[in-house]
Amino acid sequence: MQPTIINIIGRGNVATHLLRAFDAVEGIYPTMVNPHTFEGLHEDADFTIISVSDNAIAEVADKLPKLNSIIAHTSGSTSIDVLDSRSEPTGVFYPLQTFTKDKSLDYSEIPFFIEGSSGEVADKLMELAGKVSKNVIKADSGKRRALHVASVYACNFVNHLWSISDSILKENGMNFDVIRPLLKETLNKTGTMSPHDAQTGPARRRDTNTINSHLDFLLKSNAPQEQIEIYNLLTSSIIQSFKE
Amino acid sequence: MQPTIINIIGRGNVATHLLRAFDAVEGIYPTMVNPHTFEGLHEDADFTIISVSDNAIAEVADKLPKLNSIIAHTSGSTSIDVLDSRSEPTGVFYPLQTFTKDKSLDYSEIPFFIEGSSGEVADKLMELAGKVSKNVIKADSGKRRALHVASVYACNFVNHLWSISDSILKENGMNFDVIRPLLKETLNKTGTMSPHDAQTGPARRRDTNTINSHLDFLLKSNAPQEQIEIYNLLTSSIIQSFKE
Repeated sequence: MQPTIINIIGRGNVATHLLRAFDAVEGIYPTMVNPHTFEGLHEDADFTIISVSDNAIAEVADKLPKLNSIIAHTSGSTSIDVLDSRSEPTGVFYPLQTFTKDKSLDYSEIPFFIEGSSGEVADKLMELAGKVSKNVIKADSGKRRALHVASVYACNFVNHLWSISDSILKENGMNFDVIRPLLKETLNKTGTMSPHDAQTGPARRRDTNTINSHLDFLLKSNAPQEQIEIYNLLTSSIIQSFKE
Repeated sequence: MQPTIINIIGRGNVATHLLRAFDAVEGIYPTMVNPHTFEGLHEDADFTIISVSDNAIAEVADKLPKLNSIIAHTSGSTSIDVLDSRSEPTGVFYPLQTFTKDKSLDYSEIPFFIEGSSGEVADKLMELAGKVSKNVIKADSGKRRALHVASVYACNFVNHLWSISDSILKENGMNFDVIRPLLKETLNKTGTMSPHDAQTGPARRRDTNTINSHLDFLLKSNAPQEQIEIYNLLTSSIIQSFKE
């Protein structure tokens, strides 16, 4: 079998983890390429993956020498068109995960979202992603945008609610750790039923006594106005979502 | 060592899991007691745990015969005063977890929140909880209310955001499974840093281009009005929480 050579342009978290993931695959030879000097670049690599911050992709794509390679970026929120200045085949190679440099990850679980400038290019990128992950999905910019919006609700907004929860616990002499087992179980539940079916709590039960007691608690403990607005809006949204 | 006898009054999820948890401990003999007929009741049990729905606790407490036992209920959102009709020592024995009958759980991880009608009673209930869990916390009604409010934000509201995320993914031909690895990692992160420090996403970066592109997406895909309001409110709350 021919060896597969990959240029990974970048030095950040995603680049580091892609290098590590490909390094573990037999027959794949990834090299980390300096995004400023292009030191380490193989002109005849099979794939060149630009893994730099979103607003630096265009500049790197402009400055790259002519290659005999598929060129793809790793940004979920950037169109494939950012690579339009290239004459090579192009694509998107987007791993959906929050990467931290020093933390090891099970790459086989990470979903990869793939787009190609042609069907053939998409197939080659999907095959490459399939070497590290068992979860490879073809997704154009529109689908990736939907995915990004969905993950803002599911992760960024969720993390903010955890932050509010953490501050309420701390103010009352408790620690976020007391709530973590419940959180894990709530997340596990979504593996066996839809989040909608798994919904519990006072809003789901339309338990206005408890809801009022909670609002009373928030007012008396001088909670920030946004916390109260969030309580009200999410409560009414849950009630709304269970209306016939 | 004296055997410890426990009446567990109830037939629901919490009662079932408490029975299972205590059954596994040497020297502890739990019995499930019918909450209507009190069949199976030991009058000289060391502990009698009323584990019925919140609004049935008072009735069960009224009807129970005189016992030689500490009597505690398992409700996080009910005051210890609901047991005031009793002449026995009373308490609260509240495990913070979402219980499903058929699902096995690691009880040692579940936090128990304990209150007693006296310090001595609280100590006995804490000792009992310590037989199944390594995470036992003394908490009066005020502290339990704070905990309940915090868990509404961290679990119920979070689950609703997952439900919104799920519906956006489904409408775009994807499945909630694609987002689960990211969720797990987001949750893991809160084990090593506070949720506030772990916050990422467009609102955290004040990336108004992305925020506007997401709102545009929601409008064009005819998202329910609440979804857009939630996007706006949580975005501005995140921005607010990172203001100096």
